[in-house]
Amino acid sequence: MSQTSKQIRLAKRPTGMPEQDTFLFDENEVKEPAEGEVVIRTLYLSVDPYMRGRMIDAPSYVPPFELNQVITGSVIGEVVQSNATNLTEGDIVIGSYGWQTYYTANETEVRKIDQTIAPISSYLSILGMTGLTAYFGLLDLGEPTEGETVVITGAAGAVGSVVGQIAKIKGCHVVGIAGSDQKINYLTEELGFDEGINYRNTDDMTAAIGRACPNGVDVFFDNVGGDIADAIMQHLNKYARIPLCGAISSYNLEGVDQGPRIQTQIIKKSARMQGFTLGDFANRFDEGTKALAEWLREGKLTDRVTVVEGFEQTPEAFLDLFRGKNIGKLIVKVAEPEVSK
Amino acid sequence: MSQTSKQIRLAKRPTGMPEQDTFLFDENEVKEPAEGEVVIRTLYLSVDPYMRGRMIDAPSYVPPFELNQVITGSVIGEVVQSNATNLTEGDIVIGSYGWQTYYTANETEVRKIDQTIAPISSYLSILGMTGLTAYFGLLDLGEPTEGETVVITGAAGAVGSVVGQIAKIKGCHVVGIAGSDQKINYLTEELGFDEGINYRNTDDMTAAIGRACPNGVDVFFDNVGGDIADAIMQHLNKYARIPLCGAISSYNLEGVDQGPRIQTQIIKKSARMQGFTLGDFANRFDEGTKALAEWLREGKLTDRVTVVEGFEQTPEAFLDLFRGKNIGKLIVKVAEPEVSK
Repeated sequence: MSQTSKQIRLAKRPTGMPEQDTFLFDENEVKEPAEGEVVIRTLYLSVDPYMRGRMIDAPSYVPPFELNQVITGSVIGEVVQSNATNLTEGDIVIGSYGWQTYYTANETEVRKIDQTIAPISSYLSILGMTGLTAYFGLLDLGEPTEGETVVITGAAGAVGSVVGQIAKIKGCHVVGIAGSDQKINYLTEELGFDEGINYRNTDDMTAAIGRACPNGVDVFFDNVGGDIADAIMQHLNKYARIPLCGAISSYNLEGVDQGPRIQTQIIKKSARMQGFTLGDFANRFDEGTKALAEWLREGKLTDRVTVVEGFEQTPEAFLDLFRGKNIGKLIVKVAEPEVSK
Repeated sequence: MSQTSKQIRLAKRPTGMPEQDTFLFDENEVKEPAEGEVVIRTLYLSVDPYMRGRMIDAPSYVPPFELNQVITGSVIGEVVQSNATNLTEGDIVIGSYGWQTYYTANETEVRKIDQTIAPISSYLSILGMTGLTAYFGLLDLGEPTEGETVVITGAAGAVGSVVGQIAKIKGCHVVGIAGSDQKINYLTEELGFDEGINYRNTDDMTAAIGRACPNGVDVFFDNVGGDIADAIMQHLNKYARIPLCGAISSYNLEGVDQGPRIQTQIIKKSARMQGFTLGDFANRFDEGTKALAEWLREGKLTDRVTVVEGFEQTPEAFLDLFRGKNIGKLIVKVAEPEVSK
């Protein structure tokens, strides 16, 4: 049978905030699977802030998206046709083929996931890239110890919300910064953060952080950058660690992101600021996934997902990331499993 | 016999560049040594950029100087009177009593130095704080490996010149940034640096660094900060290390030191920026001194000292640090040894 796949391509490189005309909806025919290949029907796809960086043509840790090509990123799908030996119809797999409703993959391009551990969408959130990013960034670079203070920006987001929960598991005083009272309530009431600061209704962030961190800041896990990061830098303790995960405040800026230079503060505190991307830990994903799954099973971690329904909503869902609309991981639900139900 | 000591006190806290009225010359009578004490006659004293930070009343890694008190810092002197068991007249000692011509110290406050290893002034330079700062900052934080590229700002200064020489010992491609052709010649002709860039006659530092570092920058040892550091940050390699030793470009700035935010660059390169002060390595000074002395003996390190003659010149010598006048370590010679000659 001939099947049509919908696709979303990068129509042009945005300056500032991407708009609808950044994206082009297209369709093409799904390729019949050759030997070793499967046809996958997309169930969920991931939208992530880092994708903004790939939309411009500049060197980074991942190459830029190519113009007129499908925007790639993590996807969960169901095998609907198999010409491969290790995958059969109904298998749920994770891959990186991005924003399209069907895809014909070599079986080595995707990985079958274990549905008994958690809902399948968790493989795009706490058991996926964002959970692993939180795990390695906090534990390997942040090195939190019991009783230390951990401050997280973008704390209600996909990565930040997991960072804070792991820091609580490690016995830390955890302070989250986010952009709405609803998010702050979520952090303190549902996730067990000790303190939350809504930066949108706080005039003096430096003072607010001082109040929330009476013993100073030992670990500053930064997803945001900008003025908020500047304020937190004023409260570093000696030997503070600063895992740099993202700087979402700058992703849609036009022109150079200027601010006070931070080197003197880092020197005074013998602090360590370290950038990272998940790929740095590629050989330890099994370790991280296992630990996260175990905490999830024990009820020590909560996996919060904001689901947007419908493939056509993907560009808007992506833009919502920069409007601060999501709590936890933002994913797009494209379809229900068919074969496997 | 009654003896007078000349002293230089902090008269007022400077804003911007210190001036002569920042300092007050004074005299007092040298205290007779009680049991366990010695009278020390100053031979050499150290002027260092970090002292600028202690002149303002703000928390840092060392407490601020107190107003109207003698400015403290490393000093080499000769014991001229002893009421102590472990020190005798003619011993050469190192201490931290600062800018005064005589001082009565408990014998535990000072440490006798071994004159057979190097000229005694070396204990204020390559075998002293600046040499140790270079040693630990480069090797522990920079972790250079053979064939990597090491870029150093303030490269002709007391710390930078030793960093570059150690990096050469480790087999690195070494690029020094400094502020005069004379300094650049010194680095490349006498110290064996591979490349030097005189930032004062270079219009496009970013391009110049690109030419000098065709394989990118693996270790950026920063003494300077500011625009020069911004330019070097454009050339970081994946997993670059950035030991932050100082930011002399900002020490006399009035107002906030602004520049492009560097976090995104650090994230993209999974780079590590780490501040430090020598005190972080206090329990390993013997190791560092031994290694430096061995390299000095083997002729692998050159100890370059700029000597200013006369105690009265101390404030001007200190200000010269910020005018870029010194090559290597800047010290003030106060007197010749008497007893020990």
